Amino acid sequence: MKPSEGRARVVVEDVEPQVDCGRFPVKRVVGERVQVTAAIYGDGHDHVAARVLSRPAEEAEWRSVRMQALGNDLWNAEFTVDAIGGWDFCVEGWVDHFDTWVSDLGKRIAAQPVAGETRGQETREDLQLAFRTGAALLQRLSASAPKSDVAQLNEFADSLLRLAEGTDASYSDPVTDEIKELVERNPDLRFSTKSADFHVWVDRERARFSTWYELFPRSSGEPGTHGTLRDAARSIPSLASQGFDVIYLPPLHPIGKAFRKGKNNSAVAETDDVGSPWAIGGSQGGHTALAPELGDFKDFDELIRVAQDSGVEIALDIAFQCSPDHPWVKAHPKWFSIRPDGSIQYAENPPKKYQDIYPINFESEDWRSLWRELCDVFLFWAKRGVRIFRVDNPHTKALPFWEWCIHEVQKKYPDALFLAEAFTRPHVMYGLAKRGFSQSYTYFSWRNTKDELTSYMNELTTLPVRDFFRPNLWPNTPDILPEVLQKGGRAAFMQRAILAATLGSSYGIYGPAFELMDHLSVREGSEEYLNSEKYQLRSWNRDREDSLMPLLGILNQARRSHPALQRNDTLRFHGVDNPQLFCYSKRSEGDVILAVVNLDTANAQTGWTGLKMEELGLEPDEQYEVHDILSGETYSWNGPHNYVLLDPAKMPAHILHLRRQGSTNEAST
Amino acid sequence: MKPSEGRARVVVEDVEPQVDCGRFPVKRVVGERVQVTAAIYGDGHDHVAARVLSRPAEEAEWRSVRMQALGNDLWNAEFTVDAIGGWDFCVEGWVDHFDTWVSDLGKRIAAQPVAGETRGQETREDLQLAFRTGAALLQRLSASAPKSDVAQLNEFADSLLRLAEGTDASYSDPVTDEIKELVERNPDLRFSTKSADFHVWVDRERARFSTWYELFPRSSGEPGTHGTLRDAARSIPSLASQGFDVIYLPPLHPIGKAFRKGKNNSAVAETDDVGSPWAIGGSQGGHTALAPELGDFKDFDELIRVAQDSGVEIALDIAFQCSPDHPWVKAHPKWFSIRPDGSIQYAENPPKKYQDIYPINFESEDWRSLWRELCDVFLFWAKRGVRIFRVDNPHTKALPFWEWCIHEVQKKYPDALFLAEAFTRPHVMYGLAKRGFSQSYTYFSWRNTKDELTSYMNELTTLPVRDFFRPNLWPNTPDILPEVLQKGGRAAFMQRAILAATLGSSYGIYGPAFELMDHLSVREGSEEYLNSEKYQLRSWNRDREDSLMPLLGILNQARRSHPALQRNDTLRFHGVDNPQLFCYSKRSEGDVILAVVNLDTANAQTGWTGLKMEELGLEPDEQYEVHDILSGETYSWNGPHNYVLLDPAKMPAHILHLRRQGSTNEAST
Repeated sequence: MKPSEGRARVVVEDVEPQVDCGRFPVKRVVGERVQVTAAIYGDGHDHVAARVLSRPAEEAEWRSVRMQALGNDLWNAEFTVDAIGGWDFCVEGWVDHFDTWVSDLGKRIAAQPVAGETRGQETREDLQLAFRTGAALLQRLSASAPKSDVAQLNEFADSLLRLAEGTDASYSDPVTDEIKELVERNPDLRFSTKSADFHVWVDRERARFSTWYELFPRSSGEPGTHGTLRDAARSIPSLASQGFDVIYLPPLHPIGKAFRKGKNNSAVAETDDVGSPWAIGGSQGGHTALAPELGDFKDFDELIRVAQDSGVEIALDIAFQCSPDHPWVKAHPKWFSIRPDGSIQYAENPPKKYQDIYPINFESEDWRSLWRELCDVFLFWAKRGVRIFRVDNPHTKALPFWEWCIHEVQKKYPDALFLAEAFTRPHVMYGLAKRGFSQSYTYFSWRNTKDELTSYMNELTTLPVRDFFRPNLWPNTPDILPEVLQKGGRAAFMQRAILAATLGSSYGIYGPAFELMDHLSVREGSEEYLNSEKYQLRSWNRDREDSLMPLLGILNQARRSHPALQRNDTLRFHGVDNPQLFCYSKRSEGDVILAVVNLDTANAQTGWTGLKMEELGLEPDEQYEVHDILSGETYSWNGPHNYVLLDPAKMPAHILHLRRQGSTNEAST
Repeated sequence: MKPSEGRARVVVEDVEPQVDCGRFPVKRVVGERVQVTAAIYGDGHDHVAARVLSRPAEEAEWRSVRMQALGNDLWNAEFTVDAIGGWDFCVEGWVDHFDTWVSDLGKRIAAQPVAGETRGQETREDLQLAFRTGAALLQRLSASAPKSDVAQLNEFADSLLRLAEGTDASYSDPVTDEIKELVERNPDLRFSTKSADFHVWVDRERARFSTWYELFPRSSGEPGTHGTLRDAARSIPSLASQGFDVIYLPPLHPIGKAFRKGKNNSAVAETDDVGSPWAIGGSQGGHTALAPELGDFKDFDELIRVAQDSGVEIALDIAFQCSPDHPWVKAHPKWFSIRPDGSIQYAENPPKKYQDIYPINFESEDWRSLWRELCDVFLFWAKRGVRIFRVDNPHTKALPFWEWCIHEVQKKYPDALFLAEAFTRPHVMYGLAKRGFSQSYTYFSWRNTKDELTSYMNELTTLPVRDFFRPNLWPNTPDILPEVLQKGGRAAFMQRAILAATLGSSYGIYGPAFELMDHLSVREGSEEYLNSEKYQLRSWNRDREDSLMPLLGILNQARRSHPALQRNDTLRFHGVDNPQLFCYSKRSEGDVILAVVNLDTANAQTGWTGLKMEELGLEPDEQYEVHDILSGETYSWNGPHNYVLLDPAKMPAHILHLRRQGSTNEAST
């Protein structure tokens, strides 16, 4: 079948950025530039022109920016996404007959016969015909041009016609830059070719740059008491002052009593055991209720207010699973799997049984109401002022649900952010990110060696992954006390915090377990905490002298002062001649941070760096200053090779702010 | 908006092979296998299953083949394209509840309580419930199963129910392989996920493996006479006997008289000058007429018959451009560009003028009739028995036209093949291939050094290019007498023929200029032949003693005998410790050809090979025989390092057939 317009001779292909052929949006944060490239070409020798059209999805008008030829049929242009929400863009290419004519005219004029010479091949008649051709092109453009340009287009057409009828002995090029601009403003798009529309999802900046602190409100009270939301609120200002900007709370809902787990996950709870916050739902309600022991909605509103006053956000944990006591179990038994005996299927990994948890059945015939109700949970808390959600095990819920649900929430709250707790296989983690999760937990918790960290961070911070997946690096979580923290002592905690805070523009810790270096596991070989807060109250002495909070405060302050640490796309790895020393840098415009970390938690290590000077914005043999943000010391370095000594007993890393000699570029450190 | 079926929990992505996100078909030849891979996963721990569906485009029924898990959520399967024409395929994935159940059941049975022991966690009641669950799954499958399987499904469901009601002391696994196969035949596809349909274009084998010889019929006659189609026909049997299978003829149409070019492209023709066959059209007709001086349609039919009898095909040159005398010029002036003075625009590259040629205007408002007429040219000759077309400068005609036209011709003649003479930029060459050209000329003519040949042939024979672009390697054409042939003497002709015939499964030469080593250019620095046949008659003494035809015959025979030389996807490069020696291999099942070529046309070169033994199907230190197809000699080689001496004065290459010791695998050489 013939196309509807066979005269569209230009091909537009390989449009970037795109995720899965445009099936999913590319992610950006507000104010960022989207660099668009495409292969654009036509047949024959006619010149081609192209532009990028972009717009916020709800606007009708496209914004246009002309593309530049990079050579070899590749073109590029960029546009800035200046509002959060969905954006569309596409690439349009066309044959630029006027530009071809201008180029040919230049050659014709150069080949005019000159009195007394015979170098030319273009006769006066040839040139006069060329002027008439140009005039016709301009007249065609003026037919579709806006009023403001019509007169000028016609005027130039007329001047060409006068030239064609004149008796000049020789001609000089009549095409001024003004004319070129005029024509560029009025392209002949009758036979243009447009790519498909591609999509960008634009988040607020916190999607890219965030510093998380997880705490259990019930352990925030006086020792021996059940802490409350009010207690949690009291700890916020100090956390905010240390530079954390997202305070993440485990589920606050009523906890089920049926099959409640006891301390250290024992199968039978004592009567005074508080239960796991993830066994959601009781007689007082489910995912939109508060556990009475934590407080009421007045307390919750107060918590949100305190957070706002402190300039931080509360992130809630949304875990779609139910205790047998959850109201949904009675009201909507169809949302669960029913066993042949009529009972509801509890969570099971044969032969292990988790009878305190009913998973939701995403093959429910009533899936439409189910999706609606689950989505309404987010909307409920969003209405209460929550805009960040940490989603528990999203990979055990249907992926099409997430794509719909996140979109549905962001339609109403475009500033809503979602962190996926998807500790699962790479395809599934990336699949969730493509479907809308703003950030994701990663394998960072288990990447320790230089090779492991380099290859994993490379994967996360380069294309295609970085266009849809934003890592959030956690040295620990209530479920993950990695071996390095169990066995590496204080140095390990310092090293892992430094790596997380500088490798990732988003990172988080589970505290106070982290800063107080809680490192005992429930048993050898397990990553579960002994006396985990998941199953019991803990009491923490936040004022302990050896707390790592001062270090965390310095790291967080550096992250705020240095734009380089607020992004991941400029992460580069440098050489060091010692496998225990790990060296990398980040840049943002003139701001350059270089980190060297000793990965050996037991011994001092020394080595010589092998810096990629160009990646640091330095000349190959340049002399420069490095200011260590951690120690406050400043060194004079020279070229790529510099001596480093790092003693984990003191400080396992340098975080160096580079200062070029005589440069006035000094970020506040 | 919710999807229409929210229970389709499986994700299917990254389906390969595909070209430009499925926008264009992947190319294969009949009998080849299509290896399909995809990333397939769902949520949670349920097992996933998948299949590939494929069919010839005109069939309604899909053929199904089950995919195998490769790990890390990647799956694969293959199907054979056993007919020429268009094919579709897609990938379908679903949650395999029965397979999950089987796997869980195995764990449950292993965890049964055993008399006198307490190792188990699964009670008799747990297991009985599991059997009932299995029975329910089977009953569900039987509801949609074909009659032949219903009884057996129900029977096994019943047997599970009996187990559930029985009083066995302990259970053993009741799921036999027979049951597994039965269930695999009857998947539960209610909530399956299908990828988009992807497309394959399947050509006959000659699309992949062809040996071309270009000749000018008008130079095939007795010296001093204008040769005819009958003369050309007489040369076919001997070319066929030397292993050529496509005889390609420049345009056979009436040649225009207006602005006819003379010998050596001189601007003014003498009265007896024969003109360029590419200045198409005169009073006797255009693209569907024969130049009377060549003969009539009876002669043409005879030519086709002789070719068929000789087992070769005639390829015609289709050049969409017109002499001012072409009938279209009067009948359809709108198909050309009109200048402001009402005259038709001739071809021009200012200040150069080609007044003997009118290019076609693909922005004609009458483009629909134009496209139809151009397409009818192919159909006209196809009806006369021609199935291979060499298309002149396709990159100066609109790309959308080609996509439509080739498809239109192949709808009627699925065995039609098109060779693109697209000597242009890579994107454009690839764009034409994607739009349907079966083969394309390449830059091979100008790739001479080891690095140039390696990187270019790597690009052409690996993904993504090899899935849509089939190279045809030409050492010379009537337009291209490369410098190496002008200056390198006989050794250069030998070397270039050997490279073309062994690097490319399709290659061609323009003869007799090639085998008679015509090497004089019209002037220094030009690639145009002196006294080019494009503008005058030539007379060739094909029986010259120094003709390279015997070498070409040996090469072509080797190509026929060795399947390894009939494909490009197995091309691999090997080391040699001399930059002038170039070593590569091709394989097809057990057939392995290894070539070593001396790229220095002046001096003997020696070196030691560094063979990638695994690529040759050999053990690292294996001893093997190599039989030189060119010299007839056989050497005993050992491991990767073997000594080579190649003297261009004798023979610039080894083409070695590998024979493993004691192997009976001996292709006829």
